[in-house]
This record gives sequence, C-alpha cells and structure tokens, in this order.
Amino acid sequence: MTISEKIFSKASGKAVKAGEFVMADIDRAMTHDITGPLAVEGFYEIMRDKEEKKVWDPSKIVIVFDHQVPADSLNAAANHIMLRKFAREQGIINYDVYEGVCHQVMPEKGHVMPGDLIVGSDSHTCAYGALGAFSTGIGSTDMAAVFASGKLWFKVPETIKFEVNGKFQKHVYSKDMILHLIGDVGVEGARYKAAEYAGSTVREMPISERMTVSNMAIEMGGKAGIIEADSITEKYLQERIPDFELDPYWKSDEDAVYSEVKNYDVSKLEPQVACPHNVDNVKPVTEVEGTKLDQIFVGSCTNGRFEDIEVVAKMMGDEPVAKDVRLLIIPASRTEYMKVLKAGYIEQFMEAGAIVESPCCGPCMGGSFGLLGNGEVGLATSNRNFKGREGSPQSFVYLSSPATAAASALTGEITDPRKV
Amino acid sequence: MTISEKIFSKASGKAVKAGEFVMADIDRAMTHDITGPLAVEGFYEIMRDKEEKKVWDPSKIVIVFDHQVPADSLNAAANHIMLRKFAREQGIINYDVYEGVCHQVMPEKGHVMPGDLIVGSDSHTCAYGALGAFSTGIGSTDMAAVFASGKLWFKVPETIKFEVNGKFQKHVYSKDMILHLIGDVGVEGARYKAAEYAGSTVREMPISERMTVSNMAIEMGGKAGIIEADSITEKYLQERIPDFELDPYWKSDEDAVYSEVKNYDVSKLEPQVACPHNVDNVKPVTEVEGTKLDQIFVGSCTNGRFEDIEVVAKMMGDEPVAKDVRLLIIPASRTEYMKVLKAGYIEQFMEAGAIVESPCCGPCMGGSFGLLGNGEVGLATSNRNFKGREGSPQSFVYLSSPATAAASALTGEITDPRKV
Repeated sequence: MTISEKIFSKASGKAVKAGEFVMADIDRAMTHDITGPLAVEGFYEIMRDKEEKKVWDPSKIVIVFDHQVPADSLNAAANHIMLRKFAREQGIINYDVYEGVCHQVMPEKGHVMPGDLIVGSDSHTCAYGALGAFSTGIGSTDMAAVFASGKLWFKVPETIKFEVNGKFQKHVYSKDMILHLIGDVGVEGARYKAAEYAGSTVREMPISERMTVSNMAIEMGGKAGIIEADSITEKYLQERIPDFELDPYWKSDEDAVYSEVKNYDVSKLEPQVACPHNVDNVKPVTEVEGTKLDQIFVGSCTNGRFEDIEVVAKMMGDEPVAKDVRLLIIPASRTEYMKVLKAGYIEQFMEAGAIVESPCCGPCMGGSFGLLGNGEVGLATSNRNFKGREGSPQSFVYLSSPATAAASALTGEITDPRKV
Repeated sequence: MTISEKIFSKASGKAVKAGEFVMADIDRAMTHDITGPLAVEGFYEIMRDKEEKKVWDPSKIVIVFDHQVPADSLNAAANHIMLRKFAREQGIINYDVYEGVCHQVMPEKGHVMPGDLIVGSDSHTCAYGALGAFSTGIGSTDMAAVFASGKLWFKVPETIKFEVNGKFQKHVYSKDMILHLIGDVGVEGARYKAAEYAGSTVREMPISERMTVSNMAIEMGGKAGIIEADSITEKYLQERIPDFELDPYWKSDEDAVYSEVKNYDVSKLEPQVACPHNVDNVKPVTEVEGTKLDQIFVGSCTNGRFEDIEVVAKMMGDEPVAKDVRLLIIPASRTEYMKVLKAGYIEQFMEAGAIVESPCCGPCMGGSFGLLGNGEVGLATSNRNFKGREGSPQSFVYLSSPATAAASALTGEITDPRKV
C-alpha cells in the first residue's frame, strides 16, 4: 500500500486502494478568514432543522486569520467578527489575527501528525504532507459538511512518486527543486494524485525545506504532497507534541503500486525561477537574470520560515536594498518572527531599507497589502504567479527561492545567487 | 507682533498683521500618497500651456507615502507609481514607502525650521508648529498652485494663546493636556486662528510631546499650533541640520496682540479621553473606565514616537496583552522604529501578543489595515475619532495618551493608568 492508501484505510475503517470511493473520518479541519465565513454559513444551513447546532468535534477544528490581517476592509473586519463568534460559541481553537499563516501555524502548534487525514479550506493545505499526513484543500461547502459530520467523500488517489537524488549546489534549495519538478510535469502533472517525494535529497532536507516542497504539490495539480516521516520529522514533532512517538507504519510499503515513478538528479540543478503567469513556466535563473524588479516579497507559507529568512539575511549582509526596489519581509508566523528578531535580522533588514511586517499572508494573494500596480514586476518566494495574483492584472510575478530573492534585492533585478 | 505675523511678514515681504490678506512665499510643501495625485493632476492642468512643466523649486517639495503603505489596493499602487514618476521627472525629494508618517518624517529629516511657512496637503500639517514654524494643511488644488508658483494667498490669522502652567501628575502627558484644551474650547474654538501654546508646562516638554500638542491644533479648528522655539528646539534641530542656529526673532513679541489668552493649570489634570464621535467630547478617564475594547492602536503622527512607545513598554512590563483585545503598535517612522527595536521593545510587544507593523499611518484614517468592524470599540493614540474614522461607521473610537492605551491593553477595557 502507499501511505495515502494506508491513511484512507484507517480513515474509512477498511482496507482500500487507489481508485476506490470512501467516506473518510477527518482528523483535523482548518479554515481561515477568507473561506471560513462561507463554511460557517454552510454549516448553519446544514444544521437549520437541528435543535443543537454543534460542530462534530470542536477540538478537531482550527481557525486562523491570516489573509486579511489586521483587517484591511470592512468585509474583512466583519469576517473576523463572525468567525470569532463562531469559535467562541462552538469552543473551537481560534488563533485569530495573532499567530500567522495557517499552514505554518498548523504544524507549528502540533495540529499535524503522520498518518493524519487533514482538510483545510485553502489550496495549500497539502503543505502538511511534509510531516507525513495526507492533507488537502477543500471548498467551503465541503468544509461545512466536515464541520457538521467530521466526514467527507474521497476517491482514494493514485500516487506519483518523485524520487530525487543528488546534493544541491551552493545557493540551490528545495524551492528550486520543486519549481523544477513542476516545470517538468506541468500544472496538471499530478492531477488528483498524491505526490510522494522521496530519495536522498528529500531525506536530507530539514522540515522547513520539506514544507516548501509539500506546499507546492497543488501547483502540479496534486491532491497531496507527502514526505514519509523519519527521524527529522520525529524531532520536529517531539518539540511540539508531548510523548510523540514515530509509528513506522505510516510510509509506503516496498511493494506499493505507483501510477508513475519519476527520477531526478538535482546535483547540477541551477536556481530556478517560475515566470509570469504560470507556476510551471519555469526557467533556470540564468535565462531571466537582469529582469528589472519593482518589489521583492520574502514570506508566505512556502518560504517564510526562519531558515528562509536567515538565507536572505546572510546573503545580504550589511548591504542595503537596491535603490528603486521595495523589499517586503513577512515571517510566516509569530514563532518564526521571534526567531528572526532574536537573531538580529529584523534590525538588519530595517537598517537595509526593507519593510518588515507582522506575520500574515501579505501580498501573496493580492488581497492585503504590498500590491503590485500596472506594469510593475515582482519577485516572490510564495507559490503562485497567476495574472493579478499579487495585485494588478497588468503586473508580473516571478517566483524563486529566498536566496535568489536576496541576491535580487541587492541589485534590483533578477540575480543568480551563485554570483553574489 | 505674534510669531505668525512675523512669519507672514517675512513670507510676503512687508509688515503685515492679523486680518490682512497676503500672497506668501512658501518655504516648504509636503504632500502624501492620498492627496498627492490630485495635486499633481492640478499642477499639470495649470501648466498645460507651458512648454516647460516644471515645479517652482523641487528642493522645497517633499513627498511621503504613508497612508496606504505598502500599497493596499490597486488604486494605492497606481497613486504610488504616479507620484514616483512625478518625483523622478521633477527631481523632488521622495521618501516613498520607506520612512513613515509624513508629519514625523518632515521634522525628523530636517525639513522644518523656526520661522518657516510650510504647507502640506494633510490637515495635521499644523504639527510642525512644535518647532516654531507656521505650518498648515491645504487642499490638493491649492497644493497644485504651490507646485506651480511657490506662492499662496492667506489671511494672516489672529492668534489665540494657550498659557499652560503646572506640573503634570504621574501618568499624565501632553496628549491629556491637548485633549483637555480641545474639550474646553471645542472643535471650532480656534477656527482660522493660530493656536500658540506657551507657559511652563509647554516649555518643559520634550519635542516629542510638543509635537502631540501642535499636531492636534486642527482639532480645535486652528490654522496652526505654534510653540516658540527654545533651547530644546535648538538641540533637536542641531542633530538634524548642520550649523543650525536659533534665531531669537522667531517668537511673539511681549506686546503682541492676541484675540484671546486662555490660562490653564494642569497640575491636577486627570488622564483625558476623547469619546465617540468627536474630538472635543473629552472626559476624564475615570468617567469612562471599564469601557470594553476590541482594539488598541498605538501610533500615528500624534503619538507614535519612541517616547510614546517607551511609555507603553514600561507600563506593560512583562505582562501580556489582555485576552480578546488586539494591540497594534506602529512606530511613526523608520527612525523611531529603530529606536524602539534597539531598546528591545518590539521583542517585548511581540512576546506580549501585540501586532507590530512597519511605519505608516495604519488604522488612523481607516484606509489601510487594522479596521474596526460593526459594533467594535477601539482606543487609539491618534488624533481623530469621527464616525467611521477607523473603519465601520458602526464602530466607536476613543482617543487617549499612550499611557492610558497601555493600561487599557493590560485589561481589555479603558483603564486609568494611575491605577496600574
């Protein structure tokens, strides 16, 4: 069995394999300030004839406000008020505006375990695969059903295995790897499949880098982006969940059936850049270097962790941000922010002329602040560069690793980090 | 002569007194990202038949982006792009999104001197009176005329003198004094007059506290809010303007004619709070304590300086922000932010659960982030509490000193700082 088949077997109470339809028990459901209100409305619609309108299990639902934080419109403020009331009345965990981006907060606060089946009303919920969970994004209406019943229909997905080996060159990171994979298979390359990342390159990655890889599974159409839990996962979880013990069961068996196995050697991989306006429009940085930038955004659930921001800090050193380019740095969570601050990097960035904001999604989704105007060009460490994603439909977004972002912040144009 | 009469005499090249109409030479013009674009459009309209469309003196114009920073809408992004182009083409000083709130940046960067006549397309331009300048807010159309000609018509204002004596009780600050004065004379109490603040209480204030007082002159209808420059002013300016020397001429003569002189003894003054929905609806904190709060905003050109934020840090100590109240802290400028950061206060605030953002106007004008929703109640150290000022027209804003804001952050309700 694949790890996904094992998780759906547990969740449906019977041995199932890829292709079967199952009604699965949900281990954890996450919603945020944009999609949450619709889910809540749907939930009360489902419960309209019930006397007691209670969610199935308040301890298994987590709410995080991250997309429009602090409230950037009257709608956002109203959404926050509505979700606060819902959480209070139902006894649901609500991190409100305080903790940061949902996909960083969920694993960080111990809401993700290997073998879990997790749903979130956000497309990048696949991020929790970095800890060996099957987690996937669902719509607000499905989330309403989960709130009510704790169950959801799934087709058990086939698995496409990405076997990645080789040691990265200096200044090449897991973001470059996942961009390369997406560029290779295309935005539909893993449609309704579980992407499973394996091989020595993945095994050597710290959790921070694994999260980047799992986070972007959806950008190749993947339902999930799973990395088998190992001693690195165990250490991460033991710091968060008392008495956590790694269960060796939660991995794909040696005779597991994959729809496809793709092999990569990344030892010669260059830094990669996804070019406007699709995530699979991936080119080596050498093909786009020199592209003039108006704004650089370092942050998001994809690359907003301490390790990402440290790469930027170390590459920039005492150098100022280049004239005429705006550098926005937004750590993905309060915990990550505190690490960045205590390392002295916030002081360094502010001295360099960057703009550092409290944890939130920032410009990633184009709804909050840091929007690009007509004709402007942005580079971001986030996960999507669709037309208008970061502001104007007449703007252009490139995606890269934090290292490439840092090198580019020093010059004001897309720059190969190997040349800094 | 009053100091205002002296400044207008210099600016118009003849001895004038209150009530006369003059065409005055402008020493410095300031515009920002909200009102700037209209001024630029007006300027090009005025210049439409000229071959060379140049501003009168680019070295005397200053642009600051502060209200919608980083760009929080496509309109804001477009405004920024337009003003950047204008500044670049005209050779105008542009602090762009980097430096903070215009009224903090202007004096901080040495653009304000005693005796100057300064206009800004923002109502709180009166703030620079704290350094002995006559500075006042004008509309974007008037600003267009200033861009083109460097001149503007004025009626030389009468002066109302506020003679304030007495030593503040502990936890009472200049914000409490100015709220008390505004409550006393009302929002039209100084209409089209220069408010001149004098007396031992004002003389003993550091520049930071003086700025709070001058900033709010407009809230009593004042055209300006002037404090005679002295050795404290001289020290502040010598740190910013090489070779600055205090010219004793720039003060009201002993025989100056005032429209009114009002005397206050503040030695028994309680902390003051301006209640919804008018700045002159001022009550002692003891009359409103216990009012439940949803959000507290510490920042703005009125009270966003290091000294203000230090008061908050010291009062909060190691205590966390009260449950269910959001504390937003936004230093007024990058310079102030760096002082706050280096003192360890950003770490302290973030540990306490506050949200700290990069320098900007924040929720003060309800246009950026930190907006209040329907029915929500906010306390702010800023300068206006009009209906809808910080978000929903169905929200409520109270104004106070940073000390009262800090005491309230610890309890989640309006709290007398003397009781903490």
